[in-house]
Amino acid sequence: MDVLVPFRAQEPKTRLGAVLDATEREEFARLMLADVLEAVTKAGYEPSVLSTARLAALADEHPVIVDERPLTEAVNAHLDPPTAVVMADLALATPASLSRLFAADGDVVLVPGRGGGTNALVARHRQFRVDYHGASYRDHQTRCESIGADVGRVDSYRLSTDVDEPSDLPEVLLHGRGKATDWLDARFDISVSNGRVDLTRRECS
Amino acid sequence: MDVLVPFRAQEPKTRLGAVLDATEREEFARLMLADVLEAVTKAGYEPSVLSTARLAALADEHPVIVDERPLTEAVNAHLDPPTAVVMADLALATPASLSRLFAADGDVVLVPGRGGGTNALVARHRQFRVDYHGASYRDHQTRCESIGADVGRVDSYRLSTDVDEPSDLPEVLLHGRGKATDWLDARFDISVSNGRVDLTRRECS
Repeated sequence: MDVLVPFRAQEPKTRLGAVLDATEREEFARLMLADVLEAVTKAGYEPSVLSTARLAALADEHPVIVDERPLTEAVNAHLDPPTAVVMADLALATPASLSRLFAADGDVVLVPGRGGGTNALVARHRQFRVDYHGASYRDHQTRCESIGADVGRVDSYRLSTDVDEPSDLPEVLLHGRGKATDWLDARFDISVSNGRVDLTRRECS
Repeated sequence: MDVLVPFRAQEPKTRLGAVLDATEREEFARLMLADVLEAVTKAGYEPSVLSTARLAALADEHPVIVDERPLTEAVNAHLDPPTAVVMADLALATPASLSRLFAADGDVVLVPGRGGGTNALVARHRQFRVDYHGASYRDHQTRCESIGADVGRVDSYRLSTDVDEPSDLPEVLLHGRGKATDWLDARFDISVSNGRVDLTRRECS
């Protein structure tokens, strides 16, 4: 089975702009990508990066397919069942959680993302196509009904946590293990007040 | 094994105040509680509600233990291993996700909540005590280390989603199944813009 990890190389993670500057967002996004690739590899698969631009740093380790088109079109162009698609910002993904995805039954296996998205999927049905616009999880379910595909679902906090917003970053610090977590941990502390968890940027020493 | 479901009867879910008024919050909180109790029951256990006040409506169906003390003290006073503690606001909990919790190995089994909390646990070790103040998940891990308790963890999006903030409500509409979901669905629509999911209150007809 192919495993595609789509990655937007230019201006990634703009919604983290309130907390990280453009250079930091790029660094952090690439570390999350590296963590996801490592977790897929440890789960026993050989991931390919589906990137909007060349990624010289990765080329020695993993195949990089360059496709400049928007996410939905690029993924559909390379969706040759059986294929898994795993988002590059799943900073909490582990080999164990990904193994549950890859082993799950279903013509199509879906993992919801917080906020209505689809963080990961396995497509084993030839008529399945992705559509990442809007609340994609619902649309993917509807698509499966219309083509008569059995849907499997994986209930995983780790895979359902994609890192889009500043409020996602404490989850990484609290439960992450990889390079992106170490990077964040070197720059931010966690603070708790009124039952809410927040990040505080560490003062320069 | 005992299963405790703690419930704050007075002014529940204050952080949902931007979206729901006080009466609605009380109604919604009680429906979430009813859903959790039903899911625990279907998973094969007999839950007890650990409530800060009497709940006449539930008394025929489930034992209600009244303890007015704060959450941490009340739970510790009734923690007689083996005991599971499942929060009352896990609107996405299903019999299947709870069965994974109840069957998981470990002297103590922990399920993280988004934002650093502990949404559910199983205590099989006599020296384990809860502490729900602050980022309780970390504190519970530390406590387990200090008493030499093996920690099991359950990776479940459904159990890690507690409903505290307005941003948690779309998750219920998208992935819930119970009475609380139906209640919410009768009042709100989901809208999607710029990759964000929001709730819109339905106009009165």
